[in-house]
Amino acid sequence: MTHTRWVTTIPTLRWLDPPQGPAVALLDQTLLPAEMSVLVCDDVPALVGAIKRLVVRGAPMLGVAGAFGVALAAQRGDDVAAAADALAAARPTAVNLAWGAARSLAAYEDALRTSAGTSQPDPERLARAAVLAEARSIERADAAASAAMAARGLTLVPNQARVLTHCNTGALVSAGEGTAFAVVAAAHRAGRLRMLWVDETRPLLQGARLTAWEARRAGIPFAVLPDAAAASLFARGAVDIVLVGADRIAADGSVANKVGTYGLAVLARRHGVPFVVVAPASTVDLGAPTGDAIVVEQRPAGEVLSFGGRAVAPEDADAYNPAFDVTPPDLITAIVSECGIAAAPVGPDTLRVLLPGDAPDLRMRLLPFTAVQDHNT
Amino acid sequence: MTHTRWVTTIPTLRWLDPPQGPAVALLDQTLLPAEMSVLVCDDVPALVGAIKRLVVRGAPMLGVAGAFGVALAAQRGDDVAAAADALAAARPTAVNLAWGAARSLAAYEDALRTSAGTSQPDPERLARAAVLAEARSIERADAAASAAMAARGLTLVPNQARVLTHCNTGALVSAGEGTAFAVVAAAHRAGRLRMLWVDETRPLLQGARLTAWEARRAGIPFAVLPDAAAASLFARGAVDIVLVGADRIAADGSVANKVGTYGLAVLARRHGVPFVVVAPASTVDLGAPTGDAIVVEQRPAGEVLSFGGRAVAPEDADAYNPAFDVTPPDLITAIVSECGIAAAPVGPDTLRVLLPGDAPDLRMRLLPFTAVQDHNT
Repeated sequence: MTHTRWVTTIPTLRWLDPPQGPAVALLDQTLLPAEMSVLVCDDVPALVGAIKRLVVRGAPMLGVAGAFGVALAAQRGDDVAAAADALAAARPTAVNLAWGAARSLAAYEDALRTSAGTSQPDPERLARAAVLAEARSIERADAAASAAMAARGLTLVPNQARVLTHCNTGALVSAGEGTAFAVVAAAHRAGRLRMLWVDETRPLLQGARLTAWEARRAGIPFAVLPDAAAASLFARGAVDIVLVGADRIAADGSVANKVGTYGLAVLARRHGVPFVVVAPASTVDLGAPTGDAIVVEQRPAGEVLSFGGRAVAPEDADAYNPAFDVTPPDLITAIVSECGIAAAPVGPDTLRVLLPGDAPDLRMRLLPFTAVQDHNT
Repeated sequence: MTHTRWVTTIPTLRWLDPPQGPAVALLDQTLLPAEMSVLVCDDVPALVGAIKRLVVRGAPMLGVAGAFGVALAAQRGDDVAAAADALAAARPTAVNLAWGAARSLAAYEDALRTSAGTSQPDPERLARAAVLAEARSIERADAAASAAMAARGLTLVPNQARVLTHCNTGALVSAGEGTAFAVVAAAHRAGRLRMLWVDETRPLLQGARLTAWEARRAGIPFAVLPDAAAASLFARGAVDIVLVGADRIAADGSVANKVGTYGLAVLARRHGVPFVVVAPASTVDLGAPTGDAIVVEQRPAGEVLSFGGRAVAPEDADAYNPAFDVTPPDLITAIVSECGIAAAPVGPDTLRVLLPGDAPDLRMRLLPFTAVQDHNT
């Protein structure tokens, strides 16, 4: 595991073939925007550690990372099923992580199974190729999903919109332009964006650090605000639409997303402002019947009690630091995926339009994640 | 203006007589809790600067600071009316600041007027004594108001309450135990407090830095949370009552308080949790007919875009950084002052119980601040 610097491009995640690899290279998001540094993970424990530290983050990108992580284990000759388990467990809330790992594991095991009993001289080599192909396919599909979400989401954005967003949902969380941020960028290109309000998103400031950085690079007019100031923006009538991502969407339409999202949804309802969630189909978890079934990750107290290595509160104080909260479906105006738009009232029936109807992976997307695991093991 | 260290006690504000003074000594709240340092302001410009930088802050304490500031100008032989104007204009939202300055100015001018035409050999000396006596009287009254608010507020706190608070409302903002925090401390002593949830209160972290520090010193069980995580506490049913202070209360019962308060009020309403404001009578401004009449101070962008001298967002980015927001009366369960409790529906009629009915300063409290100024100049 080494840190190096990019010379030209800055993809969020890059697969490295031998001789540089096999490895997964990550743009270290904990150091942005001050430093652009790449962390090369040459085994799964390094990647799991990076995921836990939020070097790489964001639901869609965690799916891609999970997929490449399993591919990495396969190329190294490590225990592939154990790697998929470790990756899936690295963070509990974003279902995409477990989904990406399970997809890669299934590709690997299918290839082994298919070549068993044939004249194939090296089934293991074939499986290694299959799992890497699957990860690359997930990455490509994620980029395509971004573009499709942007096009669909754009239809919901009013002209000259002042958009409020929370956390970071751009190219740093996706192989494409992202989820909610992809819609913002599309609105900007279409001349329909007046202002992007960027919640700073404590404690790790993914809004102030990452979304502001992406907005600046895209030439989007924006202003950063303390999360608690969003309420006064609503009161001033300065928000036309809220656009956020999601880390897991339960079968009833409940949406787990970065902590603070639920509060924005409550404010949006009070002020009659549309509240729109943008997330790929892989974020839908039909295995979670309601929001209560979603495990919310608790993060370390130190993230709240100190800042930049400097204590701001008594160091042994307690902190309440959930990474996510859950927004109930009755507060959601619409959920946008690459496949469709589930409009209010959001619920089990409307949710189906978010899922691919005829994709080859339909089974894996519609079955609860736990069932998928059972099927493959 | 010099920085020194306390040896034993740590009052928030201390008047220094000659030979140390005349001066106003302030515990520098920008350095807490890391450093306990005292800033000695020996003229009004130094005190105005300290108020602007939030060395001293909090509505009741700003009233005390405004009063002693005018006394300081008088002892120095400076232009007392100009000093009162400069102090009143140092920060626009907390009405107590202008109120304290006006009270002192009135005491000074009354003394001059009364002794004019008498055989009094040194009317100026008499007026200097009168203004200092008035400031000390405001300080004593503020301490007494704290105790009265605590006793009244305690009647509203459920047993084994989990209290959510925002910003800092303890001994650092008052000559007594504070406003909302005084109620929390009283509940703790009465064995009725289960938990104090402390919003960190970005951008300047008065909750994480100051309220956590005060809670620790008082032995109160507490946990610090990012402001945006409060919504999930409500969703979990973990908040029994919200207790906050106020910087200005308009005649219709609208409450200006630290930015983020309004969002908490909206959440409290959705979850059926009592939302209680605790503030001295001097916070009521009958000159502001509604919340719209309250000027909300905009703070520098740098408070949001950097932290501890380190940039977290592009330094030339825009920021939306209002110091306060306004909570409409329909979201407020009760307002507690030293004189009474205005219960819902909060409005012009119920608000009168917050004001002293027979105090000698009734005129000044009931008249709009601007009218008081007119009367005295």
